Order: sequence, then structure tokens, then C-alpha cells
Amino acid sequence: MRIITISREFSSGGRELGKRLADELGFDYYDSEIITAIAKNSGLNKNYIEETLDGHGWKNFPISYRSTIGSSTYLDSNKVHLLLEQKKVIEEIGKLGNDCVIVGRNADIILGEYNPLNIFVCANMNAKIKRFMRYTQDGEQLCEKELIRKIKLIDKNRIKTREILTNSPWGQPEAYHLTVNTSDWTIKELAPSIANFANLFFGREK
Amino acid sequence: MRIITISREFSSGGRELGKRLADELGFDYYDSEIITAIAKNSGLNKNYIEETLDGHGWKNFPISYRSTIGSSTYLDSNKVHLLLEQKKVIEEIGKLGNDCVIVGRNADIILGEYNPLNIFVCANMNAKIKRFMRYTQDGEQLCEKELIRKIKLIDKNRIKTREILTNSPWGQPEAYHLTVNTSDWTIKELAPSIANFANLFFGREK
Repeated sequence: MRIITISREFSSGGRELGKRLADELGFDYYDSEIITAIAKNSGLNKNYIEETLDGHGWKNFPISYRSTIGSSTYLDSNKVHLLLEQKKVIEEIGKLGNDCVIVGRNADIILGEYNPLNIFVCANMNAKIKRFMRYTQDGEQLCEKELIRKIKLIDKNRIKTREILTNSPWGQPEAYHLTVNTSDWTIKELAPSIANFANLFFGREK
Repeated sequence: MRIITISREFSSGGRELGKRLADELGFDYYDSEIITAIAKNSGLNKNYIEETLDGHGWKNFPISYRSTIGSSTYLDSNKVHLLLEQKKVIEEIGKLGNDCVIVGRNADIILGEYNPLNIFVCANMNAKIKRFMRYTQDGEQLCEKELIRKIKLIDKNRIKTREILTNSPWGQPEAYHLTVNTSDWTIKELAPSIANFANLFFGREK
């Protein structure tokens, strides 16, 4: 079984890279399926789960609840519960034994026993702003300063979420096999070379 | 002209990767040639130049001169002079216009105008210790703690050297196109996939 995990800075193109890699390699791709499974197991609304876990929803992103409390040790109990549910779902995906790509959700740690190829995707702030403006309507209503603040906040949220599950740092190159900066080219141009990298990685001597 | 620059943590295999990439791609490879040119231009001894610029010589590595002075603003004037000589040599290489690979020496910054592919090579500490033990005799005389301290010191030296020339941070993924962690495979296995990445990078739309 070959697993690729993609961790990524918000708006760096990690999700698109994950999808394209899965297409190129013929691997399963897991993303919203994970939220659907958590919803089924827990009886909770998908939107609520996504919002609580990822803070992805732009308009409703709960930026204040940490900064007002201001403590890195504060843990939202609903979030911790859902993180453990998500962990179970990802462990089940591992047990299925299919080649797959999983974007985010600390799958690199949760599926570590299967020796996944772990990729981190980043970009410089200008590129992330451009990407965000291209793919959403909401960004247009925000000034650049506000946009930068929100992009940084989502990544801070990911760092905090990772800390609930592992000591392995988020975004540090030593924690991944490959860290890709998408600023200077499109994901479409980039994906075939990462697919080639993956093929060589999985084919190497062990 | 296609230029690949390799920045790297000490003992991560960056130099070997640079050589192998140059071989795979048929590019020129610049390393000791740069020191030879500085020696010719300045009339100074090659060993002295290398030692002053890189602190590579293991036994004679001047670990104390910074830590005793303890100031990040302290700059050795010989070192600054040689850094500028080195910069000139690298600029001359750029003007030659040949496809090439340059390892270290802040070539990513010095040759920035030519839009090089900038790669950073890292590895976890265990892998760096193993690599060091494999390639030198000196490591055997040092306990692991001492070895770790020295490996970290060489990288600290590189960070300080970079600060003399640029604000661009050393080792931060946003400053490079690709950051490769060599811990889990050999450079020989890795090189073809990076060569493929380079071909796609240089062939992309601009």
C-alpha cells in the first residue's frame, strides 16, 4: 500500500496538488469523504464538523475564540472529540489498504506506521493572496492586510490542531520528505514531477 | 541558461545531490573551482580561503571566535572580504551563460536575476550523523553529543554568513522552490526525481 499525505499552508494549492497526484497515479483521494464518515459516525452536521475541525469556512471562521482566551493550552472539547473521531476514520482508511492521497488532517502522523510519503506545500504570501482571490468571492471584500491576517490565522489554527495530536512540528522540513513551494508555477505544471518523485520514492530500496 | 542552486544543511548530502544532478542533466558543476578562482584573484591560500568562508575543515573549524565574542553583529573583516571575492566569481559564472549547478555560497541570492531553480537539502540529525560517520574518519573520535554540537555549529555559521549578504532567511521553505529531506533514501535514488523536477521547472510557462 502506498500512501501520500499532503500537509499545506492555507491557499498554497495543496488540495489541488493532492487531487492531481491521485489522478496521475490512479490512487484513491480522501477529503470530504472523511467529513462524511465522521458525520455518519457521530450524528453531527457536516458543516459543523468541518468548521470545528478546520476553520475553513471563511465567513464563519472562529478567529476570536483562541485569541481572546490567549492560551495555547486551552482546548475546545468539541474539537478534541471530533479530532479523535477523524483519527479513527483515517485509521480505517489505512486498514483498507488501498493506495491513496490524503490532504491535511495530520494523516502523516496518524498513518505513520505505513511509511507514507509526506509532502508539505507552501507558497509566499503574494502567491497565496492571488490564489485566494482567484478561487473565492469573499476575498474581494477584504483589504490585503485583513486577508494576510486571516490566511495566517488559519495556519496558526492548523498548528494548534496538530499540537493536540503530536509533538511533530507543522511545516518544519525535517518532518516531511519533500516541501514544495508553489509560488512560481501552476499546480498543473508541478503535479507530474511530484508524481514522478512519488513513484521513485515508493520504488526505492528499503 | 538554466541554473540550479543547492543550499544545504551540513552532512545532509547536498553536495552529492548537486554533483549527481549536474551529471544527470549534463550541466556544469561548480564547487572547488570557485575557491580556486578566489585564490587566483586574491593570491591567498586555498585552504585558508575555504576555512575562512565555510568552516568546513573539521579539525580546524573555528568554533570559538563567534561564541566568545557572542555578538551577531561582529563580522570578521577577512571573511567579509572573501565573501565579496566569492560573490564576484559567482557573478562571473552567471555571465558565462552555461547551464550549471552551484552548491552553497548563497548562489541562489547572487544569481537571483537569472531565475535559478533553488533547492534546499536537509535531513534529520540521525541521518546526518550516519552520513558524517560514513564519509570521514574524524567523527569516530567524537562522542555523539559533541558531533551534534559541531554539526549544528556549521549550520549556524552558514546562517551568519548568509546574513552578511542578504535578508533572505536560510533554510526557510518559502525561500526555495523545493526542500528535500534526504533522511529516508540515498542520494543516488533521489537524484533522478530531482532532475525530472528541474526539467519540468525549466520547461514551464513563464
